[in-house]
Order: sequence, then C-alpha cells, then structure tokens
Amino acid sequence: MFTILSGTAHPDLAAAVARELGTPLGKSHVERFPDGELSVRLEETVRGREVFIIQPTSPPVNDHLVELLAFADACRRDSAGLTAAVVPYFGYARSDRRNRRREPITASMVAALLQCAGIERVLTIDLHTPQVEGFFHIPVDSLSAVPALCDAVRDRLPLGDAVVVSPDAGRVSMATDYADRLGLPLVVLHKRRVSGADTKITHRVGDVRGRTCLIVDDMIATGGTLVESAEALHEAGAHPDLFVAATHGLLLGTATEDLLSAGVRELYVTDTVAPSGRLHPSVHVVAVGPLLASAIRRDLGGESFQELYEQAARSRAGRRRRASSADVS
Amino acid sequence: MFTILSGTAHPDLAAAVARELGTPLGKSHVERFPDGELSVRLEETVRGREVFIIQPTSPPVNDHLVELLAFADACRRDSAGLTAAVVPYFGYARSDRRNRRREPITASMVAALLQCAGIERVLTIDLHTPQVEGFFHIPVDSLSAVPALCDAVRDRLPLGDAVVVSPDAGRVSMATDYADRLGLPLVVLHKRRVSGADTKITHRVGDVRGRTCLIVDDMIATGGTLVESAEALHEAGAHPDLFVAATHGLLLGTATEDLLSAGVRELYVTDTVAPSGRLHPSVHVVAVGPLLASAIRRDLGGESFQELYEQAARSRAGRRRRASSADVS
Amino acid sequence: MFTILSGTAHPDLAAAVARELGTPLGKSHVERFPDGELSVRLEETVRGREVFIIQPTSPPVNDHLVELLAFADACRRDSAGLTAAVVPYFGYARSDRRNRRREPITASMVAALLQCAGIERVLTIDLHTPQVEGFFHIPVDSLSAVPALCDAVRDRLPLGDAVVVSPDAGRVSMATDYADRLGLPLVVLHKRRVSGADTKITHRVGDVRGRTCLIVDDMIATGGTLVESAEALHEAGAHPDLFVAATHGLLLGTATEDLLSAGVRELYVTDTVAPSGRLHPSVHVVAVGPLLASAIRRDLGGESFQELYEQAARSRAGRRRRASSADVS
Amino acid sequence: MFTILSGTAHPDLAAAVARELGTPLGKSHVERFPDGELSVRLEETVRGREVFIIQPTSPPVNDHLVELLAFADACRRDSAGLTAAVVPYFGYARSDRRNRRREPITASMVAALLQCAGIERVLTIDLHTPQVEGFFHIPVDSLSAVPALCDAVRDRLPLGDAVVVSPDAGRVSMATDYADRLGLPLVVLHKRRVSGADTKITHRVGDVRGRTCLIVDDMIATGGTLVESAEALHEAGAHPDLFVAATHGLLLGTATEDLLSAGVRELYVTDTVAPSGRLHPSVHVVAVGPLLASAIRRDLGGESFQELYEQAARSRAGRRRRASSADVS
Amino acid sequence: MFTILSGTAHPDLAAAVARELGTPLGKSHVERFPDGELSVRLEETVRGREVFIIQPTSPPVNDHLVELLAFADACRRDSAGLTAAVVPYFGYARSDRRNRRREPITASMVAALLQCAGIERVLTIDLHTPQVEGFFHIPVDSLSAVPALCDAVRDRLPLGDAVVVSPDAGRVSMATDYADRLGLPLVVLHKRRVSGADTKITHRVGDVRGRTCLIVDDMIATGGTLVESAEALHEAGAHPDLFVAATHGLLLGTATEDLLSAGVRELYVTDTVAPSGRLHPSVHVVAVGPLLASAIRRDLGGESFQELYEQAARSRAGRRRRASSADVS
Amino acid sequence: MFTILSGTAHPDLAAAVARELGTPLGKSHVERFPDGELSVRLEETVRGREVFIIQPTSPPVNDHLVELLAFADACRRDSAGLTAAVVPYFGYARSDRRNRRREPITASMVAALLQCAGIERVLTIDLHTPQVEGFFHIPVDSLSAVPALCDAVRDRLPLGDAVVVSPDAGRVSMATDYADRLGLPLVVLHKRRVSGADTKITHRVGDVRGRTCLIVDDMIATGGTLVESAEALHEAGAHPDLFVAATHGLLLGTATEDLLSAGVRELYVTDTVAPSGRLHPSVHVVAVGPLLASAIRRDLGGESFQELYEQAARSRAGRRRRASSADVS
Repeated sequence: MFTILSGTAHPDLAAAVARELGTPLGKSHVERFPDGELSVRLEETVRGREVFIIQPTSPPVNDHLVELLAFADACRRDSAGLTAAVVPYFGYARSDRRNRRREPITASMVAALLQCAGIERVLTIDLHTPQVEGFFHIPVDSLSAVPALCDAVRDRLPLGDAVVVSPDAGRVSMATDYADRLGLPLVVLHKRRVSGADTKITHRVGDVRGRTCLIVDDMIATGGTLVESAEALHEAGAHPDLFVAATHGLLLGTATEDLLSAGVRELYVTDTVAPSGRLHPSVHVVAVGPLLASAIRRDLGGESFQELYEQAARSRAGRRRRASSADVS
Repeated sequence: MFTILSGTAHPDLAAAVARELGTPLGKSHVERFPDGELSVRLEETVRGREVFIIQPTSPPVNDHLVELLAFADACRRDSAGLTAAVVPYFGYARSDRRNRRREPITASMVAALLQCAGIERVLTIDLHTPQVEGFFHIPVDSLSAVPALCDAVRDRLPLGDAVVVSPDAGRVSMATDYADRLGLPLVVLHKRRVSGADTKITHRVGDVRGRTCLIVDDMIATGGTLVESAEALHEAGAHPDLFVAATHGLLLGTATEDLLSAGVRELYVTDTVAPSGRLHPSVHVVAVGPLLASAIRRDLGGESFQELYEQAARSRAGRRRRASSADVS
Repeated sequence: MFTILSGTAHPDLAAAVARELGTPLGKSHVERFPDGELSVRLEETVRGREVFIIQPTSPPVNDHLVELLAFADACRRDSAGLTAAVVPYFGYARSDRRNRRREPITASMVAALLQCAGIERVLTIDLHTPQVEGFFHIPVDSLSAVPALCDAVRDRLPLGDAVVVSPDAGRVSMATDYADRLGLPLVVLHKRRVSGADTKITHRVGDVRGRTCLIVDDMIATGGTLVESAEALHEAGAHPDLFVAATHGLLLGTATEDLLSAGVRELYVTDTVAPSGRLHPSVHVVAVGPLLASAIRRDLGGESFQELYEQAARSRAGRRRRASSADVS
Repeated sequence: MFTILSGTAHPDLAAAVARELGTPLGKSHVERFPDGELSVRLEETVRGREVFIIQPTSPPVNDHLVELLAFADACRRDSAGLTAAVVPYFGYARSDRRNRRREPITASMVAALLQCAGIERVLTIDLHTPQVEGFFHIPVDSLSAVPALCDAVRDRLPLGDAVVVSPDAGRVSMATDYADRLGLPLVVLHKRRVSGADTKITHRVGDVRGRTCLIVDDMIATGGTLVESAEALHEAGAHPDLFVAATHGLLLGTATEDLLSAGVRELYVTDTVAPSGRLHPSVHVVAVGPLLASAIRRDLGGESFQELYEQAARSRAGRRRRASSADVS
Repeated sequence: MFTILSGTAHPDLAAAVARELGTPLGKSHVERFPDGELSVRLEETVRGREVFIIQPTSPPVNDHLVELLAFADACRRDSAGLTAAVVPYFGYARSDRRNRRREPITASMVAALLQCAGIERVLTIDLHTPQVEGFFHIPVDSLSAVPALCDAVRDRLPLGDAVVVSPDAGRVSMATDYADRLGLPLVVLHKRRVSGADTKITHRVGDVRGRTCLIVDDMIATGGTLVESAEALHEAGAHPDLFVAATHGLLLGTATEDLLSAGVRELYVTDTVAPSGRLHPSVHVVAVGPLLASAIRRDLGGESFQELYEQAARSRAGRRRRASSADVS
Repeated sequence: MFTILSGTAHPDLAAAVARELGTPLGKSHVERFPDGELSVRLEETVRGREVFIIQPTSPPVNDHLVELLAFADACRRDSAGLTAAVVPYFGYARSDRRNRRREPITASMVAALLQCAGIERVLTIDLHTPQVEGFFHIPVDSLSAVPALCDAVRDRLPLGDAVVVSPDAGRVSMATDYADRLGLPLVVLHKRRVSGADTKITHRVGDVRGRTCLIVDDMIATGGTLVESAEALHEAGAHPDLFVAATHGLLLGTATEDLLSAGVRELYVTDTVAPSGRLHPSVHVVAVGPLLASAIRRDLGGESFQELYEQAARSRAGRRRRASSADVS
C-alpha cells in the first residue's frame, strides 16, 4: 500500500500524479502561524505505507524545504513503511561546490538534512549536475524530461534547418541528448568571466547562420543567460525566431517578457514547479505527472527504471577510460 | 582564538555581543539570489577558531534557520575548531510534542538538523520548555533573561500593591521566578479549551482586586493570549494599568497596539529578536548582549555558568522525589 | 509473522497480550549470573519477524532497562524484521530536563540507548510528559489508559457530587481528560517549593466542600504527593472518602497503607507494572493487555491508532496559536 | 524476490549457489581500468530485491574488499530491498586485536566499512574468532564447514587408530568439534614464542604414538604452522601418513608441496576461496555451495538456522558460569 | 585542565587516583530515588575540561553501568572537553560472542552504549579478551596489572620450586606473562565440557609434582574454576599450599572461604573493584591507583603508554605470519 | 604537536614534506603478509598529536586506500588529537556520478569510508571535479598545482606564439587558469562519442595554426586522450612540437613513449604520485612537497589558505547568478 502526499509547493502536480496512479491524494493539512512557523498534520494514517511526498523545493525555497522535512518527520513518527521525497525541481542544486573557499556546499548540506529527517529515497528530474546524487547515500533517481520536451518541440520546430544550442559548456551533454533525439546538429556557446561576476560569450562552436536555433537549458530563473545567448546567436546571423526548451521554468520576475523581447518565439518548459501566475501564450508547459507516476509505479513494483533513463544515460557519459572488462553472469 | 559571526537575522545584537567581548565582528557575506536561494560566504578564515554564530530563528523562521545551517556548514568546511549556534530566540520551540497523532515534532527535528549541519553547541535564552534541551545530544545552555527584565521593571512598577500574573499553567515556574525576585505575590490564570482551537480563561488563583498586575510570559507573538489575560484581570477588578514582561518580543502585526488598547501601560521585552519596525515608546527593550557575551566569555574560559543560571534553576524545579542521596567528593 | 517476547519485568502482562492476540508467547530464557550479569537467549528464531518485546522499565529499573537492551541486541543479531519495545511504564521519564545545570537528561539518554541497541519502535502508556516522544527519532506511540480507568471508576464513584482533582499543575491535561469522560468538574491544586526539596500545596482552584474527590495522577511511587493532596482536600472540607486513579501503580513500600490512612477508600491503577506483592482489596487493577494487544494488531495491520488515541489527544492540546491554514487533499 | 550477485573473487561458487537455489545468477559487469580502478555495473535491476553478493575477501584481499563495497554501494543506490554480503572467507579476520599498541584492529575497521557501504547482513563460514561477530551491529551468521569436512574425511581416514590434532590452543574448540563428530580422541599442540616472531611447538597434550593424525585448522595460507605440527607429530612417533583438514584452502605459493613433503597424504579443504591453479590430486575440495544456498533459503523463508549451526554451537562454548536461570515462555 | 570524577562503584579508588595526581576529586552527587532511579549531579563545572569518570562496572553491574552512562551524559551536556571512562573492571566482558545462536553480544552492545552516551575514551585493566577493544571505535587502553601482582607475589612465593598454572587454555598468554616475569615454568590445565554446562579438567601440560603452584586468572567471581583447578593440582601431587593471583577480585559469596578450604594459602588480587566486605587476612590487595594515575598523566601529557603496556604486549601475540615488511621512517 | 606519517604509496614525498616542516618523519611500519593482508604499526605514539598521513591513492589504488584506512584506524585507537589524510592524488575521483543506472558512485563511497575510519580532514591537489568535496562532511582542502606548473613551463615554452589547449570541455576552467597565468590565448577541443566507448574530437574553438600548443589536463593515465588531442592539433596545423602539463603524472605503461611519438616535446607533471620507474629526460617533475608543507603549516597555525587557493578559485567559478547581497561586518 502506498500514499501520495502533497506539500504546499505544487498541489496540482501531486493531484496529477495521484490521478495517474488511480489513487486519491493522501489527506494532509499545513498551517502557517502568524510568525511564519509551519505546522504539518497528516489526516490519514501512513502506518506501514510507502509514502511519496511531492514537493519541489521551488521558491520560496527555504519554506518549501523545511515543510518537506516536517512532512518526513511526521511520516517517520507515524511509522511509515518508506518515506520518499519526490522533488521534481531540486532547489540549491547549483550550490554543489565551493566557488571560493569558506562557503558552504549547500546542496550537500540539503542532502544531509533530507536524510537526517528520515527521507529514504529521492525522485527528481534533471538535476543540475549528476554529482549531486553522490551527496546522498540513499537511492536518488534523476529522471529526464528531455524526451517529453522533444516530443513537444518536434511539432513546431522547423526541423529542416534547425540546430540545438548549448548556452555554455556545462549543458553540452543535455544539449547532445536533445540533438540526438531531434536529429539536429549541435552548437556550443562558450562564456568567460570578464570581471567579477560578469561573463561574456566569447566563442561559438558550430555554424548558426540562417538556422533556427533551439537553445536548451536545465532551468530558467531570470532568463539572463538565455537572453545573452540569444543576442550572441543573432549577432552570428541566426534566424531571428528562436526556440527555447528548459526543464524547470521558474520564470522569475520579467523573465518571460525578457526572453520574448530577445527574439524567443516559443518557450517550452515542464510543470516541475508551479507557475507563479498566468503564463504567456508562447510558453508551452509539458506535464511531468505521467513521468513521475510511471517512476513511482515501477518503484513500487520493483521494476527497472531503465526505459525512463536510457535517454539520459546516453547523453551523460563523460570521459571514458579504456578498460579490460569481465562480464560476470 | 574565537570569532563572532552574524547571520542576517539580527546583526545589531551580534555587533553588541562582539563589542562586549572587545573583538571585531567576523566578516561574512550573505547573498540572496532572485529565486530566494541563500549564499553564505565567510570573508575571513575560521580555521581552528571557536566560532559563535549569532542568529535568532525569528521570522522569517525558515530563511533564518536554513541560513544558520549554511553558516554552520561553511564553518565546518573551513575547519573551525568549534561551531556554536547562539540562537537567542529559538523558533519552533513550541512544536515540542504531537498535539494530535501524525504530526512532526518540529523542535526535535530542528535540533537534529542543527546537529546534522555540524553545530556542536547551542546557546539560547528562555526556551519555551526545558525538555527541548533533551532533543539535543550536544551541550545546550538556556540562559534566563528574567533577572535583567526584573531589574528593568523594578523602577517603574508600584511594588507596594503589585502582583505577578502567569497567563496560564505552563508559565507558572517562570512567573514564580519573577515573583521571588520582585518580592511579589503570584496569581495564576487557567485556560480551558471551549471548542476546537478556542480557549477561555476559566479560573484564577489569587486575588487581583485593585492590584497592579505584571503579566509575564516567555514571548509575545500576536499578543492574543495576553489581551485575553488583560480582559480577565480587568473583569476581576485589577488596577486598570497593566504591565507586561516577556523575553521574546516578536510583536507581530498590531500586537503592540492591541496590548495598549487592552490597558497595558508598559511593555518590557528584550532584544533577542530584531525589532520589526519603530517601537512604541511604551515598549522598553532590555539588551541581552551583555548576558550572551558573558556566557561566551565563560564558555571560552571554561568557567561555570552557575551565576548566569541560578535564578532560572530555582524557578524550574518540578515535582521532586524524596531520595536517599550520596555525596561523592 | 510476528513474535511477542517477554523480559522478566512482567511476564504475566506479556502472556495476557499474547493471549489477546491468539499467539503463543515467544520462548526465551534469561539467566542471571552470581555477579549479577544478565544473559538473554531467544529459544526460537525471530528471523524476518516483527518482534514486540514486552518489558516495563519498572524497579529495579536499571536491570530491566539493560535486559531490554540485551533482548533488542539479540533480536537484531538474529535478523528480526522489526524490533519494537513495548514499555508500558517508561522508567526515567521524569528525568526529562535538567533541574539544575550539570545534570544528565536521563530520559533523553535512555531514548538514545534504546535506538542504539536497535529498537525501531516504542509502544508505551501515559508518558509522564509528551515531550519525551521528541527524544526519539523512531515512532513512539503513547497510549492512554484513562478511558479504561474511567470505565472502572464509573461504577463505584458517586458521580452526582464528585469532582476530579489534579494534584498539581502538571497533571491538568490528564485530569481534564478524566473530567470530560466522567462529566465531572475539575479542581486543581497548586504546589510551591517552600525550602530545598520541600513543597507545600498553597492554592486550590475549584470548590470541594462536601464533594467526593477523585484525585488522578500518572503514577504512584511512594504516594507522598497524593497523601499531601488528600490532606489539603480534607482541610478544604472534602468528603472524607477519597478516590484515587493512576496509570502506573508502583506502590513502593508502604504507599498503599499511607494512602488508606490518608482517607483513600478506593485506589485504581493498571497493570503496566507487575505488582510487587499481594495487593490490598481496595486496590483495583485495570488490565492494559487488551489495549496493548489492540495497538499491536493495528500496527501489524497498518491501521490507524486514531481510536486508541483520540481521548488522549483531546486532553493534550496546549497553547494553540491562530493560524491561516490550508487543507490539501 | 531475491538476486544472487557475484563479484570477481569466486564466480564458480556464486554460480553453484544460484544453481542450488534454482535461479539464474544476476547479471553484472566489473571493469578494471589500466590504473587499477574498479568499475562495477549491475546489468539488471535489484529494485526492492533481497540481494546476496557472493565475494570471499581472499587474495588479492584489498581488491576483493573494495569491489564488494562498490557492489554494495551500487545495490543501495539501485534501491535494493536488502543488501547481504556472503563472504565465505573473511579476510583480515585474524587482525582482531592489537598485538602491540598503535596498531589498527583491521577486522573491526573492515566490519565498519561494510556497514558504512550499506551492507545489512553478513553470511560467512568458520570465522577465525567468534568475537569478530561483535565488531558488527548487523546480523552476522557464521556457518560451519566442519560437518561437511567430516563427511569427506570419514571415508578415507582409518578411524580405528586415528586422533584429531589441534595445532595450537586457539583451535581447540574447532578440533573438539571434529573429534566429537568422528568419535576420535583429541590431541593438542602448544606453541610458544622463542624470539621475535618465531614460535616453537613445545608441548603436546595426548598420545600420538603410532596413531594416524588428522590435523585440523580454520585455514591454510602458506602452511607453515601445519608443517611445523607435522614435524612435531613425527618426532612424537605418529604414523608417517598425516591427514589435514581446513576450511579455507588458500594454499599460497608452495603450500601444497610443502605439506606433502612434510608427510601429509590427504588434504581436505572447501571451496570458500577460488583455487589459485590446478590442485594436486591429494587435495580434496568439499563444496560449500549447498551450505550457503541452504542458509540463504532459510534466511529468505524466515526459518531457523539452528540445524546449520548446532554443531558449531556445541564446539564453541567457552568458560561457563553457574547461573540462576528463569525460563520465560 | 582535567577533572577526576567518581561514580558510586569505587570512591576509594577514585580518591587514590586523584591523590596520586595531586588534584582534589571532582565534586558530584548521586541520588537514588525510592523507585531505584538514579540521579547524577556534577557539583562543579567540567566545561572545557578533560574528565575521567572512575567507575568499575562491578556488581551490581547494571546499576553501575547506567550510572556511568548518566555521568557521561552530564559531562557532555556541561560541555566537557573530553569524556573518558576509567573502567578498571569491565563488566560483561566475557559476553564477547554468541555461545549459541540468538543471543546478544552484550559486551559489544555495552561498547556501543558507552559511545552513544558520549564517552570518547576508555581506560581499563586486563580485559577478559583483547578483541573487546575492537567493539569500540574510540581509543581503548587496556592496562596490565600483572607486573604489580608479580611484585607482590615475589616476596612470599618460594620461587625455587614454584610453577605458574593457567587454569585453562584461554589464560595461557596471561600465565606466560607471569611465568616470564617470575622466571618460572608454565603449566596449563585443560577443561572439557562433560554435559551441559559442566566441565571437567581433563588434561594437564607440565609437571607439578611437589611444586608450589601459583594459579593465575583474570578474575575471581565465585572461585569455582579455581577450586576445581586446586583439586586437579592436588591430585597431581602438587605441594599442598597453593597461591592464587587474579586481577579482579570480585570474591562473591563464599569465594574466599571456598578457596582457602581448597588449599589456597595466599590470594593476590587488586582493588579494581571495591571489596564487598572485610577481607580475610590471606587476601592481599595490590593497589591499581598508581597505574591508573600514571596512565592518565601520560594521556594528558601526550606521552607514550609503551612502558605501561610492554609486558602485556609481549604476552599477547598470537599466531604470527611471516611477512615481507617495509620500515618507513 | 604534530606528526607526519607516510604510508607506502609515496615515502619520498612524505619525507620532503617533513623536511620542509623541519620535523623528522614519524616512524611506522607496514607489513604485507603472503596472503596480501596489510599490517600497519606506528612506531611512536601519536597520542594527542595532529597527525597528517601522506598517502596518494595511486595504483595499486585499492591497496593504497585500505592502507590509508588502516593508518587512520591506528591513529584513532592511539588517541591522536586529529587525523588528517593528505591524499595528493585522489584515486576514484572520476567515479563521481553514475554514467549508467545501477552503478556505484565510488568517489562518494570512498569519501564515506575515509570518514568511517576516523579521518577528520583531507588535503588534496587538483581534484578531478570540485563536487567531490561535497561527498564529505569534513573539511577538504583541494590545493592547486597550476601555479607551480606554470612557473616550470614558463622558462621553456616560447610564450610569443603559444596557446593553452583544453583537451575537452571538462578542463576548460583549469585551462583558463593556465592561460591567465601565462598570458596566453585559450583553445578548447570538443569530443563526442562516436559509438560505445569511442570518442572523437569533433570541434575546436580557437586557432592553432603555427602555434606552439600547451595541452593541459589534471592527470595523465595512459595518455590516450592527450595523444588524440595531439593528433587533432597537428591536423589543424599546430606547430609540430607540443607541450603537455598535467598535475598527476601516473604515466601508466607506455604513456610517456606514446606521447613523445605523438610529438610531445616536453611533459610537465608533479610528484603527487611516485614515479613508477626511471623517467624519460623530457618529463619534468615539479615538487608539491613545499605546497603541502605550506598548507599543513597554515592549518596548524590557524592561518588562512587564501593565498594557496586564490588562483584556483579564480579559475573555477561557474555560472553565476545575479544577487542582491548584504555584507555583514
């Protein structure tokens, strides 16, 4: 027996997942006191059940994180059989190293907090770097939304003359996955710090002249990086109409407007985070509920996640070493 | 060697503590990204130093809590000799048990998180319940602001006809400490749930007719409990002018105005939390910087905290059992 | 599959629980060597089974505690599927805070020891304070014996003119539960330290003149507190015949005689601890075997404990805060 | 559902265990890079399964140990339901204490590493000392190969005039088990350090004149101890043809030849470690696959291991103390 | 700065250690409530100090163990710089393995409890088996009382014709240490289980005819083993007057009388445990205070324990393997 | 007081570090038994000392790793004040993520093992990816050898027409650091998987025609990647003479020869790993002893590592986000 619970970060997604799984959403209640303290209460027992708490740690990230930890503590104390966190968007994932000395590695600390609060399994989508999995000692399954985004993009993108663009060196493997799936060439932009925190796109690998560019990224926060990329592509003679695809569409502040002004015609994101308001008609939202539901179903059934991963797997392999290998079977 | 660091929750208090200790405040930097993620950076090394991070977990509690954890992670990774959290106001302390089944015990979970992030010692003031110390396995020193508040109150309170009032049964030991120090009688109010979350003051132990009442509490959030108490005291014939003393003056929303309207003439709080705006002239703020500095100095010197505690100790002893005892010396 | 094991603290209770569950008691053997060291041996395998070890940590508390830990270690090493401690009376629960500095918090330490020895779940009855649950990070279910005690009391207590008396402020919530269930008014006594460890009952909330008093408490050790309460009630004109109800009837030394001499006519306790000898006919013992068996059955079946708790829950809610709440379903 | 996995230390044994259990061996792949780093990959999912990783930590011990840990990490990250290590030969078991100050206790450290990597259960055979179990806090089942070795020996050993010989005081309990099962007398040799690391056999308990000696031991590494024993027995007039039985036949370097030269006619070992080359015809290898398969089957079925152990148990009891005992059932 | 604290198990020894170290014993207070619960209180601060808690876990072992744990918890919560347990006699050390399946390994569990309660270092004397050190992951120093006992014995034992007797195979290494120090031959007795828990001495290595025997052991509980040994030695023609030396003289019940009746003329023990009454004049008690004080002094000064250990080290080396070694300096 | 210890992986480097620090190398002894088991012994006490164990986990990686863990265990058990691992080359660092599902994350597991064995601090050089730091919860200081390598290269490289080449996207930040220090332009090569494990260099950012190329990398194992790069650069018209700089010169097998054949004229590495034989005269080895000694000296003195890091820091900053920041001082 299992139970799907929802924190307050994205009840619609939780409802969609539960619906896909043909089960009602578990009842729970979150209060927020005038001083901002949260109070969580499960309104049905989870005794002995496998519980999946659906809560992206999207903004306000600290509130959503502490709420998730409180849910986990409640599940543990009510004798849940398994407490899994489904965190479609994993906040703080970019804080995966110390850029300067004397900083925390916040993503590593968050991993420790989740385990400390009793979370035994994590399900997430398109982690910023695969190393974040290693911050955990519990199973972490990072699913890929790229196949679903490709399916959505395919209909509208003029495939004949399009290219996939990685906005910087860190996204090359994700961009390669897109390029392989869509059968398109890959173009890579390079940034370099100019002074302080300012970076400038200084190089470009591949030709974009007259091509329709699909810039891909794992997330869009303020959209600054993408606007810069758009400018660089236009300067390089790309087709004026740009496409953008990104898994996590935080779209903070005027991000959507800024992207449209920079020539983006269609913007594809998923619903790993709840939209912060009414979306512009050029923003297409791909549902990840089916993907999450499928992963949960396989997890409950002890089935392989292989099909869900294999695309991602292909695009991730880094520097490989020659090895003498021994198959054991 | 030691370093005093400040989070963003209460830099003035941190500066006061550092000043008392005759040391400059350690340099650090907190950034908040547009998506709400925090980034902490220490701007001087804490290698081998005893670090005291001053950060009440006052509202916004989750932001202040995660920031404190991030500071601790940064200190640990920079090889601090000891990482102590000075949390003058300990948020979530009231969530120290499950009121209903299937809830978290958030204070216990917060204790676990602090230890998980590398905090090795906690210094706090007037914890809501002493049992919270037991949620930790590291040293927790809960100091008392009552002596300092009594000193402040003594000048203005007409001691001749005054009484100390505990607003409910849970504050009796703190009120006893006030009463003993001020040489005043004690009056206790009793509340009882009427329906749902509504409570009503139903009983009163001790006479207040014509007396000036000093209502004491550990904290004032919205002030609702105190307003109720004020009404009950007026009904019972208390002197119209009321005094209130409480350690943690969150004074959320219209709390000050509500209390003044309910007949409170003077309101004594400490600066364990940063004031949220300009304070009304009737609110007297007692500084806890000297108390915290004194505790840190004793801790660094390996001296007893006895003098700092003894008052609190006296007021706390619960049901005692007869014992055959054996002194070992 | 599950197994009920019994330590040596209360084999009769363990047998009663097993009988209720329709299963034979698991075979085990405890040796005590001449030097007092204990040796535990399970005489049937618990491999893969859910094991419930029934052992109140009643006097001699340290022997019963170490034996419980040894049972847990044996179960873990024999690959038990789950090791649960059923501790109807939780010794050291009153040591839940430091009355003076430089003391242990023994209840917190005991919680840590139990977890350290491999105990994964705790079932107990009427914990002295609810905060003790927070000393654990495993599920702790504190059942209430109040409903069963009320059922027993109801027959003999002259309900028409009776009142429920809380012997001090710490028992008010438990006394409220009794009062609600029996439909009686509540009277609260207040104690205050006079000097050293001596306390005196100084106040009384509610009228007892001519009323039959049912004094309630969580436990009776030497009975000293209750004798004091009886005297105070007689002085206040209560009906000479007193009733007492308490969950844990340790009844040490001459406790029963002292209570009878102080005017107690009927004494209701449960069998959470094994009687230390032949009980006086005025002592009525309510069996908790059915309650424990019911909890174990629900735990095994993944059913809610709600019905078992709801009475207790009602009587426990402390100071509640106004909250903006959000139901999620 | 369960899965049998094999590291590279002994695939034949793993295959034999899987065959006994009527299940195909789980697919996995181990690569060794030119720099000696190992890469492990499971080629089928273990999600939710009980996994038994079969890997003796035989020479090269460090490679086999790290590989086992990597397998465990892979299983944990793939959400295995249970990760058990089947370590028929437990390397480093002899490093169970500090012979001199300032040494590691490597067996204790290895136990900690296995638990750290996520191993939850250990199955092994004839541990060098039973105390090694206490280095773990997870279930460790040490099976005995003595019954199987006795069955093999019985056919060829001239039982009429044979004796069982323990090569030193540390093997007396194992030798007693052999003697009891074969109905033979026991002879004990005593060694004493002469200088530095050199030892000499100085005493012998029991008569061997004209007797056929079966020298038993837990393992044969270089065979040095056994060669010494053989010489001492010949000096004492034993029958020229000697028999040797030992559970773990590492048979390093010229061990077999040395033993044969020293008069050993038949050598009985088991296949807890993979043979390092072609075995001499005088070396008889007893298969432990059935024993391991039987233990796994019982473990999965929640059945007692009693029958598998009872022989071992009998031979192990040390100094026993008189006890007042209390059976609880 | 350091502090010596004493539990109630052996205040005289603690006082002796403190005296040797030229420091007053730290003040503390232990209460025992009528229900047997212990309450520990430190009466001076240990903030930042290195604390050595002197407490043999002698009978009543469980009380002394829990008291030691409570002391440790108190030290940790009062911010001790280091909490060390000085446990001259380590109770439960003989429960270092499972004699039968389905038993706890109590010594391993006790090690875990000590670490769980915050003990960071252990100092003990003549552990029953050296493997117990491996149950810990903190530093454990097991000192040897053999040199001091030899010094005491030397004066009275007729060295010309004496032999050292090991009462069973498990004490051979300790007996070797005695024999080497006293320049005497070694005799070993062998026991074998006859039925159930009954053992019989069946063999003897070495000649005792007309010799004065010094039987040595690590501890004397009821003395049963030694009485048996005495009988066997007499049967074998030993000199009627026997000597006995043992580190831990529990001397339970009629142990002393039984030994004297069995022909023991002089009995040498140390004061690792407090005598349970007036000692018979034939019992000589060697003080271990100086040994413990010396170890503490070296530990505080960061000096080697080598001299304290080297004797023990020599006598402990077990089966040694030939090794290719590499000195690194 | 501190002690520098050396494992067997690189005694020359350890000696150099000790020499720089003006202290003799701590005495220790490592034995390897015929079965490959390691035995470590410290030959001087480390009681209370800060111990730095110098041991790169170079090939044979598993032996060096287990030896390092055994050293740590020995230090912990001998009461070292601090146990730090100095691992100039961190084996398994490239296994920092799961390339395919169902793999271990070996670098994360190794981090856990080091902490499990009692290592409290890690000092390393040029970690393959900065995220590896987040696998630890203890301080990890990754120093940079780039400044020292640049100093060495500067003398011989014709700076006038040279370029720095990053052999793939993952080394761009390190290459940028070289380029900045040497005042040279940066060229980036791009690889793409062709089939299976085969990759091909498909793109190049920047012009190399006629330029002298300095290819940089963190390590050279077999040199395969660099040979490929050399070929691609030659094809693109680079000057025939190539330079290579890499921190970790494993130079396995025929790596040096292969590189020379591919046109590499000068090869700069450091001595983080011990050379496996006589080095070719074209291989220049830069000593890291001074860098490590300087870091240890600062660590012991509680001084900032800033100067040691700042170069590295500059070259590492990734995608940066705009932030509203608050300096606290």
